[in-house]
Amino acid sequence: MRVVAGLALSLGLAAACQPKAETPEQAQARMDTETTAARTAIDSLDREFAQHFNQGHADLVAGMYTEQAHLMPPNMPVVVGRDAIKTGLAPFFAMKAELKLTADAVVANGPLAVERGTYALSFTPPGATAPMTDTGKYLVHWHLIDGKWLLADDIWNSDLPAMPMGPPAKNP
Amino acid sequence: MRVVAGLALSLGLAAACQPKAETPEQAQARMDTETTAARTAIDSLDREFAQHFNQGHADLVAGMYTEQAHLMPPNMPVVVGRDAIKTGLAPFFAMKAELKLTADAVVANGPLAVERGTYALSFTPPGATAPMTDTGKYLVHWHLIDGKWLLADDIWNSDLPAMPMGPPAKNP
Repeated sequence: MRVVAGLALSLGLAAACQPKAETPEQAQARMDTETTAARTAIDSLDREFAQHFNQGHADLVAGMYTEQAHLMPPNMPVVVGRDAIKTGLAPFFAMKAELKLTADAVVANGPLAVERGTYALSFTPPGATAPMTDTGKYLVHWHLIDGKWLLADDIWNSDLPAMPMGPPAKNP
Repeated sequence: MRVVAGLALSLGLAAACQPKAETPEQAQARMDTETTAARTAIDSLDREFAQHFNQGHADLVAGMYTEQAHLMPPNMPVVVGRDAIKTGLAPFFAMKAELKLTADAVVANGPLAVERGTYALSFTPPGATAPMTDTGKYLVHWHLIDGKWLLADDIWNSDLPAMPMGPPAKNP
């Protein structure tokens, strides 16, 4: 009898203590907390990104991407990986590009986050005497690796009819 | 004595059965499973999207977006919400646009998914006698609402130097 009771208790304990899926409410509460934390981290990383970019530190900018990140600039093919991203930034630096990023929405769940934002980019094309300004929107897929948010996918496009944000040689 | 034992048992049960955070390995295994399922769902939704788009069903295409979705076409401002998206599609339908979508990577965690892909779009601009083709890349933030994946953020740009994919009036 005591064996049966003990067995029943063990089974009861095992059933009660199986890893349980979160309820939708628990998942939403956790995501809200993670999103708030990711928002703070990403706002800070956006400032860091713009600072490195505006100072022409290609290494530091490229280091903010994942090893196999996809950079998707308008009017040119996708750029894959940190080394290619570093090289791809050179034309911007040659134009003394000045970038400002503003996150408009961030959503996170565990190691996955999405940021939607807007940018303003001033640059002086070769031969120009005054800087031009482009404004547009972007979407970034961030991934948390070893406690650090890195850009995994980065795509943007211009709001302006005739000024796609690409290296000068590729512009119409 | 039996009360103390019962209390200890209750406390033990309560401690053992607190909701536990997943281990990183458990989280990764769950995300892998969810990603596989999301990939299948999104491949199917991409085909459905292209079918509705190519048949000029603006209502059905717009219905695949969340209520407050952000559509971010190149060379024009962001389009916010289903109604505006429906209106914004009209120029494409007027050009008999034919769209093909290919998902290159999907990652999901719970109700959040990111899709990176490539598109090919054939269209016949007003006055043209033969269709033109644009190719490019896109990033979509999908959100699972009531068991259905909907587009929450959708951005793309062209791989081609001089043919941004926008409505004809806005093109350079």
